[in-house]
Amino acid sequence: MTAARDWEPAYARRAEGMKASEIRELLKLLEQPGIISFAGGIPDPALFPAQAASTAYAEALASEGDAATALQYSVSEGYGPLREWIAHDMASRGVQASPENIIITAGSQQALDFLGKLLLTPGDTALVTAPTYLGALQAFSAYEPRYDTIRPDQTNRTPDSYSQAAQKAATGARVKLAYAVPDFANPTGETLSRSARTTLLDLAGNLDIPVIEDTAYHALRFEGPHIAALQAIDVALCGAVDKSRVVYLGTFSKTVAPGLRIGWICASRALVRRLVLIKQASDLNVSVINQRVMHQLVSDGRHAELIARARAHYRPKRDAMLAALKAHMPSGVNWTKPEGGFFIWLKLPTGVSGASLLKRAIDEAKVAFVPGAAFFHDGSGENSIRLSYSLPNTSEITTGVRRLTSLLR
Amino acid sequence: MTAARDWEPAYARRAEGMKASEIRELLKLLEQPGIISFAGGIPDPALFPAQAASTAYAEALASEGDAATALQYSVSEGYGPLREWIAHDMASRGVQASPENIIITAGSQQALDFLGKLLLTPGDTALVTAPTYLGALQAFSAYEPRYDTIRPDQTNRTPDSYSQAAQKAATGARVKLAYAVPDFANPTGETLSRSARTTLLDLAGNLDIPVIEDTAYHALRFEGPHIAALQAIDVALCGAVDKSRVVYLGTFSKTVAPGLRIGWICASRALVRRLVLIKQASDLNVSVINQRVMHQLVSDGRHAELIARARAHYRPKRDAMLAALKAHMPSGVNWTKPEGGFFIWLKLPTGVSGASLLKRAIDEAKVAFVPGAAFFHDGSGENSIRLSYSLPNTSEITTGVRRLTSLLR
Repeated sequence: MTAARDWEPAYARRAEGMKASEIRELLKLLEQPGIISFAGGIPDPALFPAQAASTAYAEALASEGDAATALQYSVSEGYGPLREWIAHDMASRGVQASPENIIITAGSQQALDFLGKLLLTPGDTALVTAPTYLGALQAFSAYEPRYDTIRPDQTNRTPDSYSQAAQKAATGARVKLAYAVPDFANPTGETLSRSARTTLLDLAGNLDIPVIEDTAYHALRFEGPHIAALQAIDVALCGAVDKSRVVYLGTFSKTVAPGLRIGWICASRALVRRLVLIKQASDLNVSVINQRVMHQLVSDGRHAELIARARAHYRPKRDAMLAALKAHMPSGVNWTKPEGGFFIWLKLPTGVSGASLLKRAIDEAKVAFVPGAAFFHDGSGENSIRLSYSLPNTSEITTGVRRLTSLLR
Repeated sequence: MTAARDWEPAYARRAEGMKASEIRELLKLLEQPGIISFAGGIPDPALFPAQAASTAYAEALASEGDAATALQYSVSEGYGPLREWIAHDMASRGVQASPENIIITAGSQQALDFLGKLLLTPGDTALVTAPTYLGALQAFSAYEPRYDTIRPDQTNRTPDSYSQAAQKAATGARVKLAYAVPDFANPTGETLSRSARTTLLDLAGNLDIPVIEDTAYHALRFEGPHIAALQAIDVALCGAVDKSRVVYLGTFSKTVAPGLRIGWICASRALVRRLVLIKQASDLNVSVINQRVMHQLVSDGRHAELIARARAHYRPKRDAMLAALKAHMPSGVNWTKPEGGFFIWLKLPTGVSGASLLKRAIDEAKVAFVPGAAFFHDGSGENSIRLSYSLPNTSEITTGVRRLTSLLR
């Protein structure tokens, strides 16, 4: 019997940069009995509007005419009424937008893939924070960029130093984009201050590059003053979203449900027209029935209600995790105090590895989390971990943190 | 007031190869009153199982436990029971497969994008028929390939001539894949004979390249003997799908409904594992609720019933179009006689352009179709057009063809 076909020689060069996601592999752990999981940025299904969704699916298929469009192919830019709703809602985020500034995507993950595809030639530089959202690194890496690190809170590099580093990497290579999660970032839970946002926009202006603003957790603020979106700040300066360098990524995955796979991009209509071509070539359109259902679930003030419920639901979970960390964590461990979102970021004592702690945590403490190194483009961050409080209840959070701290004593 | 931001300098090199789809633009014409459309490979919504879908959505959300998984994130490879059903169904297509050979995609369009991403380094050659499915050219072109033409029905090139042409194109460039739609092809409606399939597999064997088999219309055979799938022929020779060079693309878009955006790839599990990484980085997973609903709609023999209904529905439409063409079309025009699927391909008299005929057809005859040139990678095919009979009823087909022929007299 001959062996299975060896596919490796068939792959494109870019396949070298494609890695398995530790987060996605960890999702499988959620099914093990007895594990308390602080892994995965997963919303609590207790919040899913299941009854409303059921009604909306029934309505979308109620008449023959409805079903004929809900189950058919459709335009790549997305369902008109949903694009209108989002354009209108962007005003509450400080951005005056029209439906032509909006394209519907299969979650923000697809938006990241499309922007990598549109902006990155192999060898070009993407500026990211370190740590940053792992899924952004995965999406961009398919387009073979080089990464460089931005620190909007403590600028220590000149625009020229970024340009020069990019040019050294490959002939004709340039800095092509900056990516940031300004509010309650994945993985740190930290929020960029107003001045850090201005610093980031100034840097992007000096380099004349787009800024990709990922707002996945933006709506989930538990306390503290709202800080304007990067796109809102930029539009206030340049006068219109069509003139802005900021590409705003929104999603319903954290406030409604991720299972419908619906997010959006708000940007200059010139850019949106290009992204529509990419959507056509990539998967034609987002499921129309899901877009119609999402429109039902969020319109007439219902998104605001879902957001209010989610804030009230996640805040005590964050409080429980911060309280348990304060009560039980030995000295030498530091952690962030997020004002919203799903995540707390821990720096372990020097020499303690997040990856080896995870092995012990699963075996000895029945607790899961994500080792920090996964979120760094440069392989650093070995002695950090990400804890998510979104899924377990407060009593599990308290128990899980106590079990975890016992490994560090 | 300053102008809108110029985004052109920001784009990657690959953006040069991205073009708008004439087909997708033509979808907008469907909404004009009075137009009889032979454009778009769109299934007839009269066949959509709307009532069954409505029941299935309600069931997927019936209990709290069901809703908690149906509306949540999930694994990138797809919903287990659907992968099992497909693996089992592949046996009826002549391929013994296990669920590990299957990944669920957002329609076959996403499968094409993923395979371009995994296999094509810029400058590599993709072998395609001329004409071929426009969406495949759009998907592959994002990865900057060179194209070369295969003619499985009339081999006139040696494997060496393909290799040499590929090597001339760029340093290190190789022939990396062959793509074909063997049954009732989009756009010609033609089917590859058994011997043409063997010829294609021999060529691929000599070049040692993967063959991407797009079976979008495969189930819709109205008459004539079944011809084994490329993957079935190859597996019979090599012994197992894990040893096969054929990558089988299936979809429910033509037999159930395109609005759920569900297709699949059946291939060697080594390849599937790579594709799962690409799915993770591209959009995480296909909407779980849609996968559950699709599983309900096709299992327990229901897919076979839907296929039988679709065949009975489309056959008289094809008959009506062929009869009208025979009755009214002036000499000098030739067309294919498909045994299934959605399409008939017309060769216009020399000097008559499909694109300029379309303008006249819309204005003077209120008929739409797709000019043939869109389906050629090399810009040829100017004097051909594609007619689809899937959407209009038989009386509209007869009227539409009569109106069209009046322009050619």
